[in-house]
Amino acid sequence: MELIEIIGLVAATLTTTAFVPQVYKALKHKSTADVSLTMYIVLLAGLILWVVYGVHHNSLAIILANVVTGGLALAMLILKLIHK
Amino acid sequence: MELIEIIGLVAATLTTTAFVPQVYKALKHKSTADVSLTMYIVLLAGLILWVVYGVHHNSLAIILANVVTGGLALAMLILKLIHK
Repeated sequence: MELIEIIGLVAATLTTTAFVPQVYKALKHKSTADVSLTMYIVLLAGLILWVVYGVHHNSLAIILANVVTGGLALAMLILKLIHK
Repeated sequence: MELIEIIGLVAATLTTTAFVPQVYKALKHKSTADVSLTMYIVLLAGLILWVVYGVHHNSLAIILANVVTGGLALAMLILKLIHK
């Protein structure tokens, strides 16, 4: 595999897993007051459209990255609504 | 332009602009206690690598989306460090 494709995979892994510590923090502290509800609504809408785009282009990478990030964004949305 | 490419553009716009309300909230309330510092460090690292990937592939869409999101993530990182 070319170096640039490895860089792309690392990039996708980082931007996807970045949301894990945010979900963990919200679960641990049971507080999401400073987290923007609008951000996670807009983000989730965008991620769902990315999955549609990935399905149409048969791109497993796009589908996988956005399904995982979408799951984490949905978790934040639910935590935000629970702790409102 | 094909419908699926319009869907891709809307997806990119949404996942990029999603961070605007988060930056606005942090600026307005001067509080980021519930926001994960680790999330924005990992996210920014990933977005920088996406820009490298986009430059290598001459993809203006990838470069533009990730430079804008990177700027917003950097703003959140600075706000998080200021209000620590």
